Amino acid sequence: MNEQLVVLGVDIGGTKLAVGSVDASGRILATARASTPVREGPQRVLSLLIDLCKDVLAATLRQAGNYRVVAVGVGCGGPLDPERGIIYAPPNLPGWEEVHLAEDLTDRLGYPVYVENDANAAALGELRFGGGRGIKNFVYLTISTGIGSGIVIGGKLYRGENGNAGEIGHMCVAYDGRPCHCGSRGCLEAYASGPSVAMRAREAAAKDGNTLLLKLAGSVEAIRPETVVAAVKQGDPLATRVWEETTFVLGVGIANVINIFNPRLVLLGGGLTQAGDLLFAPVRRVALSRAFARLTRVVDIVPASLGEMVGVLGAAAVAFDRLEQRVMNVGNVI
Amino acid sequence: MNEQLVVLGVDIGGTKLAVGSVDASGRILATARASTPVREGPQRVLSLLIDLCKDVLAATLRQAGNYRVVAVGVGCGGPLDPERGIIYAPPNLPGWEEVHLAEDLTDRLGYPVYVENDANAAALGELRFGGGRGIKNFVYLTISTGIGSGIVIGGKLYRGENGNAGEIGHMCVAYDGRPCHCGSRGCLEAYASGPSVAMRAREAAAKDGNTLLLKLAGSVEAIRPETVVAAVKQGDPLATRVWEETTFVLGVGIANVINIFNPRLVLLGGGLTQAGDLLFAPVRRVALSRAFARLTRVVDIVPASLGEMVGVLGAAAVAFDRLEQRVMNVGNVI
Repeated sequence: MNEQLVVLGVDIGGTKLAVGSVDASGRILATARASTPVREGPQRVLSLLIDLCKDVLAATLRQAGNYRVVAVGVGCGGPLDPERGIIYAPPNLPGWEEVHLAEDLTDRLGYPVYVENDANAAALGELRFGGGRGIKNFVYLTISTGIGSGIVIGGKLYRGENGNAGEIGHMCVAYDGRPCHCGSRGCLEAYASGPSVAMRAREAAAKDGNTLLLKLAGSVEAIRPETVVAAVKQGDPLATRVWEETTFVLGVGIANVINIFNPRLVLLGGGLTQAGDLLFAPVRRVALSRAFARLTRVVDIVPASLGEMVGVLGAAAVAFDRLEQRVMNVGNVI
Repeated sequence: MNEQLVVLGVDIGGTKLAVGSVDASGRILATARASTPVREGPQRVLSLLIDLCKDVLAATLRQAGNYRVVAVGVGCGGPLDPERGIIYAPPNLPGWEEVHLAEDLTDRLGYPVYVENDANAAALGELRFGGGRGIKNFVYLTISTGIGSGIVIGGKLYRGENGNAGEIGHMCVAYDGRPCHCGSRGCLEAYASGPSVAMRAREAAAKDGNTLLLKLAGSVEAIRPETVVAAVKQGDPLATRVWEETTFVLGVGIANVINIFNPRLVLLGGGLTQAGDLLFAPVRRVALSRAFARLTRVVDIVPASLGEMVGVLGAAAVAFDRLEQRVMNVGNVI
């Protein structure tokens, strides 16, 4: 039986950790998960990660199959240095001031470790295993706690001058608009991320108590993005106003993405896209009406295809991608 | 004496035509210019272009030097199909419904003809002969009658799925802002192009006659972007308000470009940049304060370097670029 190359995909989130072993076709062989002990600091999180990786390695090698684990890919919130694998205090991982993640994990696991921004990793996952297969130019957006993006150009991830391209969540669409936690104003993320949907719904409900939102959530403070979606489905006017603003601004942002990149696909993933057509229908309508016809003609705005497994599969794609580049580079030298 | 390859660069604008012969180092050997007889339709413009090309060819071959003209590059307003060299009714060339420019010029000149969007051509000119030399990732913006852009990624022009990437002038920065002639609202171009500066100054002067603008221009209708710049230099409060809004919105747009592309350079060319530091100082201040520090650290926002010759040199760069790609492709096949 032929030897099959396998990588570990490691997804480091602010609320959960996930590790999976993945073969070159994108099949997941084994997985392990845990809550992120985020308050206990990076060393505790890394120890737990090592345990999860070892569990997955053992479970993988117990399976019938001639598997050889060759590398570890990691997706993590930025800012980070993808070349050196150093994490610089992502907002969702307080205390991770300058964590030499790649070096640390390599020392403790014995495999080469490759680190990438989580949105870039997800884009690579979609490119290799998901809806982006065979597509040269696409933009992946995750609409979640924040809005992250990965830009694929000519079939490759575009990282920019120092690895930080794709802050599309902080593209300003209202120059004197809502303040954003990044320090600017009117960013896409200030309107269309999960927390901003909840915040705007809370503000509206605090002013006007005549809304289903209060009945569904119990209190203003308990309103969450899911509450808004549920209230919209029941026809609540206040929730509908908040949701219409959300999808409108997201549509404007995606029109910008289309006008700037002239992509074949805009892939949308992340928690808020679970609203399905309630999100996609108005977003498509706004984006396609505001961008140039010559560009909208060639683009589709569609749900990302990897769903919940995008974290692990994206991280695995990072590892496969870097391994191939190494091979390519070696080939070029010879 | 070694044979030197030369190309013709042809710049087709709505007000003027320019042709120059250019060697591989970017030296201009001969030029010819004419006003664009835009009302007389494409056939008349093409005949005049052929005459200009023939003049430049003759003047080039009369010079001491072993020159061999090998191709013609053309920069023209879009939309257009750069692969097939077809022009589709650019706003500045009314009546050019479906002009097979490459085919037509090839038939009449006997050289291969390569066509590119004028902003893309300018970016290629800066990449090959100007401020973009040796830079992998930069964005060129021309702030002129419209706002065009060319995106260079990995040392190559990024064209997008069907050749229309880079409509950064129609990136929305105010979702409920000023109407734009493209049909959308709040586009960068609706605030920071030359005509929009003049239009906003006229609107303001029509409401409040107490402004130097009227003295300098003679009437509301005669206010031009240059009038606004002149009045700002003399401290006129109304002109200053219009100019501050202009540079602020342009700064916001460039902050977006930085957050999205993480480029090494943002090169600004076009008429409005002749205002010099009056434009660059506030634009830099706004852009650098609104984009992420990790990205602003690696970027410079600087004037494009080719000045008035960008049209001819950009078109020449298009020709050299495509010739090299041909050679490369042939090389790959062998």
